[in-house]
Amino acid sequence: MPGQVSNEQILFTRGVPAIEALPNHLLSECLQAALEGPDGKAVLQYGHNGGYLPLRQLLAEQYGATTDQVLVGNGSLHLQDILAGMLVKAGDVVFVEQPSYDRAIKTFRRRGARVIGIPLEHDGIDLAKLEQAIAQYKPVFMYVIPDFQNPAGVTTSTEKRQALVNLAERYNFWLLEDIPYRTLRYSGESLPLLRDFSKERVITISSFSKLISPALRVGYLVGPTSLVQQLTKLAEETILAPVLPTQAAVVEFHKRGYFASNLKNLKQLYSPRLAAIAQSLKTYLPEIPVAVPEGGFFISLTLPKQASNENIVAHAREAGLILTDGRDFFAEPLENEDADQGTRFVRLPFCALTPEQINEGVRRLATLLSK
Amino acid sequence: MPGQVSNEQILFTRGVPAIEALPNHLLSECLQAALEGPDGKAVLQYGHNGGYLPLRQLLAEQYGATTDQVLVGNGSLHLQDILAGMLVKAGDVVFVEQPSYDRAIKTFRRRGARVIGIPLEHDGIDLAKLEQAIAQYKPVFMYVIPDFQNPAGVTTSTEKRQALVNLAERYNFWLLEDIPYRTLRYSGESLPLLRDFSKERVITISSFSKLISPALRVGYLVGPTSLVQQLTKLAEETILAPVLPTQAAVVEFHKRGYFASNLKNLKQLYSPRLAAIAQSLKTYLPEIPVAVPEGGFFISLTLPKQASNENIVAHAREAGLILTDGRDFFAEPLENEDADQGTRFVRLPFCALTPEQINEGVRRLATLLSK
Repeated sequence: MPGQVSNEQILFTRGVPAIEALPNHLLSECLQAALEGPDGKAVLQYGHNGGYLPLRQLLAEQYGATTDQVLVGNGSLHLQDILAGMLVKAGDVVFVEQPSYDRAIKTFRRRGARVIGIPLEHDGIDLAKLEQAIAQYKPVFMYVIPDFQNPAGVTTSTEKRQALVNLAERYNFWLLEDIPYRTLRYSGESLPLLRDFSKERVITISSFSKLISPALRVGYLVGPTSLVQQLTKLAEETILAPVLPTQAAVVEFHKRGYFASNLKNLKQLYSPRLAAIAQSLKTYLPEIPVAVPEGGFFISLTLPKQASNENIVAHAREAGLILTDGRDFFAEPLENEDADQGTRFVRLPFCALTPEQINEGVRRLATLLSK
Repeated sequence: MPGQVSNEQILFTRGVPAIEALPNHLLSECLQAALEGPDGKAVLQYGHNGGYLPLRQLLAEQYGATTDQVLVGNGSLHLQDILAGMLVKAGDVVFVEQPSYDRAIKTFRRRGARVIGIPLEHDGIDLAKLEQAIAQYKPVFMYVIPDFQNPAGVTTSTEKRQALVNLAERYNFWLLEDIPYRTLRYSGESLPLLRDFSKERVITISSFSKLISPALRVGYLVGPTSLVQQLTKLAEETILAPVLPTQAAVVEFHKRGYFASNLKNLKQLYSPRLAAIAQSLKTYLPEIPVAVPEGGFFISLTLPKQASNENIVAHAREAGLILTDGRDFFAEPLENEDADQGTRFVRLPFCALTPEQINEGVRRLATLLSK
């Protein structure tokens, strides 16, 4: 009942897992097994600089790669950071989807990149605009989130995946695909990875933050051997080795079948939350077009033009609704693109809220807009 | 008996803890307590971006600081990396002791610094040469390891600590004191921290790698509030948050009194190893002057001039003795300083070897030199 939540703040901010879904008891058991087992002292010692070898083996098998094509680090953001540090020279251009993950944009900029946003449509990047951008710039890499994109919720179609890879091969830039949400599909069928179209031009990054726990900070990267070797050396020089006991726990989590059962639980918890937000948007904001995703953490919308001059975030806060500033998700636009889209962009992460909180949150948002 | 080890390789290379000393059972218990306790889900969730708050509180108390003066990260090397990223602009000068920790020299260089080595004496830096260097350069910071220095084993005297801080205050540079070995004192009394002379000009870095386990990668930094706040923001942008369950385990490790008992065990294990290496050097290399440390992981020596042209590392390898290339520990020398000292410098980490291995290793080294 909406009444139960009417006075509390509703946080449509960060894409965090539901706290009740974090498998602390199972992980406790897995950590115990890792530390009491035959590798118990090895996972506390120096070594395993590119990540705990059994985890690299598990991932290599999963991605049809060799272990020297897999690097495991302390979360995927840090892998993005050192990768950008390796690939980007000051002033180099990097493409991202527009909108894109705010922290990735920031990271690439901090490493010296000029970050250009290529408009994202309901089925992935606008290819005509990407070609236009390629004619103008020579990107070092393009960063994409093909499944249940952060922040838009969009999934790139198979055709556009193939086209992206073709362009990357023709114009010699890296494709960095970030797929932390991919496995959280509540309906429909998985599409191929970009990696499935080219193992030479694609670097795949993911993590267990959304699938097991964020604070484990177990992220990984799969790519061509020479690039991964170079990056592993740089990672060693930067952090020596990643934290190992937690990586060993992730291996145990798989071995014991907990990964599959936990994933099932997550889907059972999150799927009704996606249904709730889709329904609430239909109920309270029927005039705004929304593409409902088949998985992940996010749904997004673009408010009508007349809302563009309002300070949405501040007004929402007064109404007990906490939103992320939409502008954070927007990089430098292409020429002739609307530079103010961010002010009307709203990301709604739905996994850490109950259906009641979701309903109340969307109701408040609609009230704001009708003012 | 030396005979027992005569055919195996002796690794006088990295400063690693003895594997048998890694407290895997105790840590397993602590991780379990952390994950099954009231904070069990919170230590798996996003949040605690500057480190697990109870650990920051514990360290703040230990160092007479406030929690916002403490940042906990994934190992101290990464904290050195982001600190250098924050403080160093391309071409800036950084001072280190000559010799110094090879990875620190590399890190500062990768962040754009020109790294100048100030000669280290048996009681700390050569102050006259430091003053000469200050007259010539304007360092952003000076990096020192005042206790049981890596690689030399030297401990800086109280007088020189005070003098260093005076110079840092007078000439406005940061002092970065790295103290991972400080607590491993086998005899004698602890000297004051540099921090004890100035909380405004000193940044203290340390970790639990040598005191509990390296692969926990729990490192921390204590410094002035404004600097730590800036650095915490940069850390969040780089890694989001550090790995938390391991930090929560470190808190439990203290709460249960395991830190004290484990430290006692480490000293009981390592102290005879220090005695063994001191005795072996006296026996086999009596003509080479050696300063025996009162703690830590390292003892070092400088071979006589006539050894300078030999490729010590390669010859040692043939004799089954693995050494680190001494040149790695040397930064750019001051004018008129010997640029080839590194070729004659030998670091001997003694904690991960038995007294028998130590004796045999030093015997082999002596044989090499008598050739």
